[in-house]
Amino acid sequence: MAVQPGPPARDVFVPHAFPENQIDLGEIVLNYAEVGAPDRPALLLLPEQTGSWWSYEPAMRLLAEHFHVFAVDLRGQGRSTWTPRRYSLDNFGNDLVRFIALAIGRPVVVAGCSSGGVLAAWLSAYAMPGQIRGAVCEDAPLFSSELTPAHGTGVRQGAGPAFELYRDHLGDQWSVGDWAGMVEAARRSPHRMVRLFDMSDQPPQSLKEYDPEWGRAFFEGTAGVNCPHDRMLAQVKTPILITHHAHSTDPETGEEIGALSDLQADRAQAIIREAGVPVDYRSFPDAAHAMHTTEPARYTDVLTAWAATLPPAAG
Amino acid sequence: MAVQPGPPARDVFVPHAFPENQIDLGEIVLNYAEVGAPDRPALLLLPEQTGSWWSYEPAMRLLAEHFHVFAVDLRGQGRSTWTPRRYSLDNFGNDLVRFIALAIGRPVVVAGCSSGGVLAAWLSAYAMPGQIRGAVCEDAPLFSSELTPAHGTGVRQGAGPAFELYRDHLGDQWSVGDWAGMVEAARRSPHRMVRLFDMSDQPPQSLKEYDPEWGRAFFEGTAGVNCPHDRMLAQVKTPILITHHAHSTDPETGEEIGALSDLQADRAQAIIREAGVPVDYRSFPDAAHAMHTTEPARYTDVLTAWAATLPPAAG
Repeated sequence: MAVQPGPPARDVFVPHAFPENQIDLGEIVLNYAEVGAPDRPALLLLPEQTGSWWSYEPAMRLLAEHFHVFAVDLRGQGRSTWTPRRYSLDNFGNDLVRFIALAIGRPVVVAGCSSGGVLAAWLSAYAMPGQIRGAVCEDAPLFSSELTPAHGTGVRQGAGPAFELYRDHLGDQWSVGDWAGMVEAARRSPHRMVRLFDMSDQPPQSLKEYDPEWGRAFFEGTAGVNCPHDRMLAQVKTPILITHHAHSTDPETGEEIGALSDLQADRAQAIIREAGVPVDYRSFPDAAHAMHTTEPARYTDVLTAWAATLPPAAG
Repeated sequence: MAVQPGPPARDVFVPHAFPENQIDLGEIVLNYAEVGAPDRPALLLLPEQTGSWWSYEPAMRLLAEHFHVFAVDLRGQGRSTWTPRRYSLDNFGNDLVRFIALAIGRPVVVAGCSSGGVLAAWLSAYAMPGQIRGAVCEDAPLFSSELTPAHGTGVRQGAGPAFELYRDHLGDQWSVGDWAGMVEAARRSPHRMVRLFDMSDQPPQSLKEYDPEWGRAFFEGTAGVNCPHDRMLAQVKTPILITHHAHSTDPETGEEIGALSDLQADRAQAIIREAGVPVDYRSFPDAAHAMHTTEPARYTDVLTAWAATLPPAAG
């Protein structure tokens, strides 16, 4: 399979309930959907690594009653630009800084799932002054998505082996595209975490819209090499909500199944507290990784109740 | 020597001719000097890696007749914040995107020397739409400051061995601080490029103001791992001026002495031309690396004449 061009040339997309818009941020054109009245508080939603903005579609219907909601495709996701060799937390994050400045134009609550949740913390730490009111880290792989984390096990003992399969069988920009070979290799993988990834006979819709180089950048550690989580968490400047979903430890191998371990969630909270910032922790041991998709009403309740505790936006 | 705190707690600074200001960009507080009438075209000056804004001091007196001039300390330079483990081209560049948005507020001509010249090209490629009118790369190590460049030799055959000495003898945030040992090691180095670095008995003023972790990030390649120069140059969006100063090739070892080779300067121009952007090249074989410091009048003439050829700023 030849290297696929970036969106919008790829013909892989499907219709959605909310209209999509695009904005030129300089390096990328970012695709997003917007819903809710502009006089409500602004909310920015960041999908999980292999998702697109529309993983929030069911939740957006409910959140629109409370917020002016923006849900985005990050670079390499959905209809946003693919940026070969430039997938990093700092580049994802600075795209969002620009998006908030140019498209939203006022302070936001930011909520992200998985890698998007790491980026919510990133924005709390590193956005421009006054852009962020609070950040929700929905089952975010704090420490556990790093190659050499300060606390606990790293990406190669977590989601990394799945990303390694993407790298080898799908390739940067789908340059390999051997889906069947990947599914076969996944069956033989000794890593239980690989079983949590969708390995159906055909690529799921969200993965069709995804640049597999994202996964390689996490497996190889380049995505986060200049953004150690311990430093990032020590620099957050707004209240943080950490939600922690279903997770367990394989008693035989010690493999941590889930987004992050109890130890890692504890260390994250301790560092944030030390930074002098309020941090809330909610454990949902029965919830799927992307609760916002599987239980949109529960997710909306959690997010809305927490956001109501934030100080009002300045200005 | 204990790890030194970031500015302004370090007591290493000296007075300068122009007043300094600071601005909070979110992650860092950036230090800068400003001179010239606000009704003149805006000019942003970026120092070389081991410099501070005041390496432009002599040139600023002359440039002020033509421009509203801003000269900055990048993160890790001068009085700007030190950011351990976060020195990368993309982070330096996005600091400047914010500075242009928050402090300058209109389109600029950007001119940088050495690493600052690489960042001038970065801004042409990756700044927010409309921020940059043109970029001057003053003797910038295009390709040659990368660990694994697309063209020619890389940083470990260029300035890298000097940065390796900084890493081992000065340490991140001056945590080692063994200046005398470094000077001694430099005398024994087989690399001719090391002789171009100031190895006096005492650290020069600009180096006292510099976080040696900058050098480590270039020696180890993390500074540019997510910003390959071939991709960056293919994405520039404004006219570019490349100046190329004294350089030569050691006939015995093949070592390239200088910021970049003729091959690398040629490839940079070819890629920029292919991107559909005007590129000018000026060779100054008798000029020092930082012509803006050693020959401020000549530098001012070159920059001013080229900037006069740019289309006027929009809006």
